[in-house]
Amino acid sequence: MLPVRTALYQGPSGVPRSIPENLAALDSAARTAAAGGARLLLTPELWLTGYALGDRVPDAAEPADGPGARAVAAIAAEHGLAIAYGYPERAGDVIHNSVQLIAPDGTRLANYRKTHLFGDFETKHFTPGDTLVVQADYAGLRLGLLICYDVEFPEAVRAHALAGTELLLAPTALMRPYEIVPNTIIPARAWENQLYLAYANRSGPEGGFHFAGLSCLAAPDGTVRARAGLGEDLVLADVDPGLLAASRAENTYLGDRRPELYGPLA
Amino acid sequence: MLPVRTALYQGPSGVPRSIPENLAALDSAARTAAAGGARLLLTPELWLTGYALGDRVPDAAEPADGPGARAVAAIAAEHGLAIAYGYPERAGDVIHNSVQLIAPDGTRLANYRKTHLFGDFETKHFTPGDTLVVQADYAGLRLGLLICYDVEFPEAVRAHALAGTELLLAPTALMRPYEIVPNTIIPARAWENQLYLAYANRSGPEGGFHFAGLSCLAAPDGTVRARAGLGEDLVLADVDPGLLAASRAENTYLGDRRPELYGPLA
Repeated sequence: MLPVRTALYQGPSGVPRSIPENLAALDSAARTAAAGGARLLLTPELWLTGYALGDRVPDAAEPADGPGARAVAAIAAEHGLAIAYGYPERAGDVIHNSVQLIAPDGTRLANYRKTHLFGDFETKHFTPGDTLVVQADYAGLRLGLLICYDVEFPEAVRAHALAGTELLLAPTALMRPYEIVPNTIIPARAWENQLYLAYANRSGPEGGFHFAGLSCLAAPDGTVRARAGLGEDLVLADVDPGLLAASRAENTYLGDRRPELYGPLA
Repeated sequence: MLPVRTALYQGPSGVPRSIPENLAALDSAARTAAAGGARLLLTPELWLTGYALGDRVPDAAEPADGPGARAVAAIAAEHGLAIAYGYPERAGDVIHNSVQLIAPDGTRLANYRKTHLFGDFETKHFTPGDTLVVQADYAGLRLGLLICYDVEFPEAVRAHALAGTELLLAPTALMRPYEIVPNTIIPARAWENQLYLAYANRSGPEGGFHFAGLSCLAAPDGTVRARAGLGEDLVLADVDPGLLAASRAENTYLGDRRPELYGPLA
C-alpha cells in the first residue's frame, strides 16, 4: 500500500482573523499541500474561528453541517485532498470543541467532540464530548480524531490504538511553556501505541494566549517525520502502512499488555 | 518536608560478575552515595546475579529472604540508606524477575514481581507477577516499584499514580537501540503522571545483550534531574516533595481524567 502524504497546517498565526480570511488561508495551504502530493491536511484546534474567542463562542459556533463545513468541503474538492479542521460546534443547546474530517468529494467522514477540556476558557464555554473513539477509513488507513489536551492522556491514545487507529489526527492549541508536549509526549504516544500521530498546533500570540507551534508528525518507530517551526508553517510527511506494519511486528506493546491488571484505570 | 536524595547505580557493566563481586561493587556505590547525602539507592534489573544468565536462572534464583537479601540489608545498614535491588526470586516452583526494597535498618519494605516480561529470555525463565501496584512508605514519600518493560506501558505507571505513588523506582535492563525509552518515554511518564520516576539501567555488553545505560531521574515538572552516561556510573539527584506538590497543583492530569471513558483499556 502506498504511503499517504499528510500535511500539517500550522496557521494562521497572530491575532484572530475572520472566517473568510481563515478560509482563504486554508485554500492557499491546501493548494500548496496538494501540489506537494498531500492527500490529507490537518488544521489546528478551533481553526475556523480562532481560539481566543472569549465570550463570542456562542455566536461563532455552527452546526457540523454549517457554512464552515460547506466552505471546507469546497476547498477539499477543489484541491482533491481530505481536510480535518477544528471548529466550535453547535449541537442544540450546547457547544462542543470539535474536529471534522471531510473527504475530497466533500462528504463528511467523521466528527469528534473534545472529551478532555483544558483550562478556564474551554470549561466555561464548551461541553465535553462523551465518545472517546471516533474513526474513519480513508486512503487505506484507519484514521482517528482527538483534540489537544486529549492526547496528553495516555488512556485516550491507547483507546484508539486498541480500536485499530493507524493515523491519529489531533488539532491542538498548545500554549507556551508546554513545549514538552510536542517535543516529548507526542513522540512517546506514537511509540508506545505503535501508530502515527499528527499534531497540528496554533502559533504565536492570540488574545491572552501564546501558542507554541512545533506541530509534528510522529511515527511508530519513534522518529519525528515532520516538525514545524514557531510561526505559521506548512509541513508534509508520509504515513507509510508498510513501516507501521513492520514496527508493530517488532514492538509488540499492544499484544504484551496485561489488561486484567488495569482495572483501576477505568 | 526535606528532599530525599536518591542515587541511581548504573552498574556493574561489562561481562557478568559473581554475586560476591556484585555485592562488593554495591557496597562501594552505597558508600559513595551515602557520602553524597543519598537516603536511597536503586540498582539495575537482576543486579544481584547479572542479566545474561541463560539457563542458569534456576540455580541463581533465591527467595526474597535469601542470602542476597541479607547481604544487601547489611550494606544498607552499614551506610544508612535504603536500597532497592533487582534479583531473580525463587517462590516455590516458580521464579520471578523481582525488585526488593530494603530499609536502612535492614528490614524488607516491599517486594515486586515484574508483571510485563520482555523477550524470549525472560518469558522462558520467569513467571510474570500478578500484582501491578506494590508500594512502601519511606522518608516521607510513597514509593512504588516497577521493572523495565513495565514502565513502557502507560497503564502500569498510571496505576501507580492513581494509588498515590510519589517516587516510582524502576530497575531496568534496557538494550540498544531502545534509547527512546530513557530519552523520551521516562520523562513522558513522569510528566503525564505527575510523579518522580527513577530508572536505573545496566550498561555495556553482557552475553548477547548490549545495554544502553542512560539511567535517569525524571521529575514531574518535565525535567530530568540526573542522567548517567553509557558505562558504569553513579548519579544522585533530589526528590522534592515541595516541587511535586506544586507541579501537581499546576498540572492537573490526575484530576482531569475521564475514567468513565476508559473501559476498553481494562
